[in-house]
Amino acid sequence: MTNRPLPRGVAIVGAGMSKFGAFPDKNGRDLFVEAYKEMRRSVDKGIDPSAIESFYLGNFSSDLFEHQGHTAPLLADAVGLTPIPAARVENACASGATALRQGVMAIASGMVDVVLVGGAEKMTNLPTSDVTDTLATAADVPFEIAAGFTFPGFYAAIATAYMARYEMKPEHLMNVAIKNHDNGALNPNAQFGVSIQKWMEGRIASAITKGKPAPTWGDIWDFLHDDSANPMIAWPLRLFDCSPITDGAAALLLVAEERAKDFTDHPIHIIGSGQASDAALHDRAVLTSLSAAKLAASQAYEMAGVSANDIRIAEVHDCFTIAEVVASEDIGFFAPGEGFKAAEDGMTARTGAKPINTSGGLKAKGHPVGASGVAQVFEIWKQMRGEAGERQVPVDVPLAMTHNVGATGSSCVVHIYERRN
Amino acid sequence: MTNRPLPRGVAIVGAGMSKFGAFPDKNGRDLFVEAYKEMRRSVDKGIDPSAIESFYLGNFSSDLFEHQGHTAPLLADAVGLTPIPAARVENACASGATALRQGVMAIASGMVDVVLVGGAEKMTNLPTSDVTDTLATAADVPFEIAAGFTFPGFYAAIATAYMARYEMKPEHLMNVAIKNHDNGALNPNAQFGVSIQKWMEGRIASAITKGKPAPTWGDIWDFLHDDSANPMIAWPLRLFDCSPITDGAAALLLVAEERAKDFTDHPIHIIGSGQASDAALHDRAVLTSLSAAKLAASQAYEMAGVSANDIRIAEVHDCFTIAEVVASEDIGFFAPGEGFKAAEDGMTARTGAKPINTSGGLKAKGHPVGASGVAQVFEIWKQMRGEAGERQVPVDVPLAMTHNVGATGSSCVVHIYERRN
Repeated sequence: MTNRPLPRGVAIVGAGMSKFGAFPDKNGRDLFVEAYKEMRRSVDKGIDPSAIESFYLGNFSSDLFEHQGHTAPLLADAVGLTPIPAARVENACASGATALRQGVMAIASGMVDVVLVGGAEKMTNLPTSDVTDTLATAADVPFEIAAGFTFPGFYAAIATAYMARYEMKPEHLMNVAIKNHDNGALNPNAQFGVSIQKWMEGRIASAITKGKPAPTWGDIWDFLHDDSANPMIAWPLRLFDCSPITDGAAALLLVAEERAKDFTDHPIHIIGSGQASDAALHDRAVLTSLSAAKLAASQAYEMAGVSANDIRIAEVHDCFTIAEVVASEDIGFFAPGEGFKAAEDGMTARTGAKPINTSGGLKAKGHPVGASGVAQVFEIWKQMRGEAGERQVPVDVPLAMTHNVGATGSSCVVHIYERRN
Repeated sequence: MTNRPLPRGVAIVGAGMSKFGAFPDKNGRDLFVEAYKEMRRSVDKGIDPSAIESFYLGNFSSDLFEHQGHTAPLLADAVGLTPIPAARVENACASGATALRQGVMAIASGMVDVVLVGGAEKMTNLPTSDVTDTLATAADVPFEIAAGFTFPGFYAAIATAYMARYEMKPEHLMNVAIKNHDNGALNPNAQFGVSIQKWMEGRIASAITKGKPAPTWGDIWDFLHDDSANPMIAWPLRLFDCSPITDGAAALLLVAEERAKDFTDHPIHIIGSGQASDAALHDRAVLTSLSAAKLAASQAYEMAGVSANDIRIAEVHDCFTIAEVVASEDIGFFAPGEGFKAAEDGMTARTGAKPINTSGGLKAKGHPVGASGVAQVFEIWKQMRGEAGERQVPVDVPLAMTHNVGATGSSCVVHIYERRN
């Protein structure tokens, strides 16, 4: 892998996403049309759809979720883009960022100038047990699933390995959930648009306040570590350590750098792209970091010519709270074993030194698998352009990063973004 | 879409495939390992696997066929290529060629120099009705499958439209099947390694010869149009008009042109790549040709700077006999309405003016969906290098083409190949 700068620059000139949540009356196609329309509205100088030359779709398993394959040309047709080349790209939960990377390469190759990148997943029409079973196909099925693992179990194994090596306790993980729900509460597209504090106050606090006028934060903290209120899913991971099951879609418009000014005076440039693979979890010597993530990040940093210190904010793959802790170390924001402390100290909060998942992350915004990696870029686009509304970070964001993981890190894709004006 | 020549040349320096067939004891991973090993053996000057920088896998639905997703990093790991970037690309039956096109773009982008392209599908462990149901997910499910269509029905609709417009009769289609089985009989990797004549003579001819010493060709021709011997599947398509259900895999090694000499003195250059999408069949005005195929072919011709007259042989997507007839017109080998006559006249035979599917095609070689587009290139590699053994065409092949269709033409990918010495 040559990590030279891209031979041809690539810029984002539009980004949109659907509302994330559970929408019984919408299929993946409906959700993608919503995201595409939002993307069109976001292009400052407008976009004539006939300028779009190619389409990459990140989607994990429309096959199992919707009994629909060959999704890319169907979605292209649904938004009126026939007959452009359309291709679905799949890397489990990293499908979205992998699709983005193909869009970057397509433009860098000189074969196209304007590319639509989308992500979509419709998950909630299946019973939860079937969703769990479908997600499990992202693992090494004959070796891992046959042994009884599902994804909460995998990330519980990562959490226990991390606790064995460092001084983290299970309680530390809830800091990540609280922070991401605080952010999600300010995101109108989030599945959970409410903070954990409000959630607890509004829905169930009466059970624990025993006649007091309102629950204190201490009451809520205790409640979050009570098995009846926040059930254990796979020790040490509780319900609020896990991202939800979500329907949603997202869309980005990429163009060759020299054409960006035709679409906006405020493009976001993609200056680093890294991707790596790894053996399945059962075949790894180390569980406290994801080697594919470290490698993808180092490639992206090298290509971009920047370091972790330069990156102002990041959207990382917090499918579980422990995943965000590990991610924050793998991308070099914090030293190994320090990520959980940074979360506890507020370093990763919106107002902290290294804000992570200002969108609410997969945890609170929702995790429609194939859309997640694309929706991460939507948040970066908003924050870098100062359009993130109530959740806008209080500092300027000239450099940012996305980190999107497939399964337990068998795939990871990292991108670095730059705003130049 | 800019159809300029590739900014950076791409060459094939190795190609391999597994045996195609039904292998109850092998999964998709096993088959891919076989194809990869064959590819390695084919590299004239050898390949150190550590030189391989990226991997694209064409696979339609390991999700539904094997209950396994996230297949690309698993297969990369199975052949020892961790931690290179790995991505699955899906476009139904055109998944293989779509993966190839991503490999071409990745090298053209300058981001990598050496790319592995693979295709794999494990289909035969499901009951046939479930295979039919899984293949149907390549269509526009809520509109077409809900109306009762399956793929033989779609191609029957194309065949009836063609017969209504041109003077083709159902009997004409069997010429394609006979020709492709004749070729498959000479291909040691083919699922059906026997000609239709031998098949009939050996297995069931006794039923029709009524005491004669051996069936005549006339007997066999009659037998091929007898409902009991060659059952009607979806009028006018009989059993022998349909490609089979197949397990198989294939692999190609692509390199930046300037590095080809490190691997072989006889590379095959990829000089044209075209891809297009189309609405699903129910939404089209014309059924007698595939607009995505015509467009992909015209793009590839323009990029390569050659015309249909220059192409010596082609592997086209003959999932059904009518598909080959239409393909032979869409790629410009024959005028509209002339393809079935060309097949009848032997023009597309190995010894004809425009040989098509010298490998036996999907019809006789087999059609493991995601592998088919990659295995087409394996045949081109063999024929262009003069290594096709008994089925070698009798003329030199400096220019060749592959044509790979997804579903009924919602996707099509065309590539053009050149041998320069």
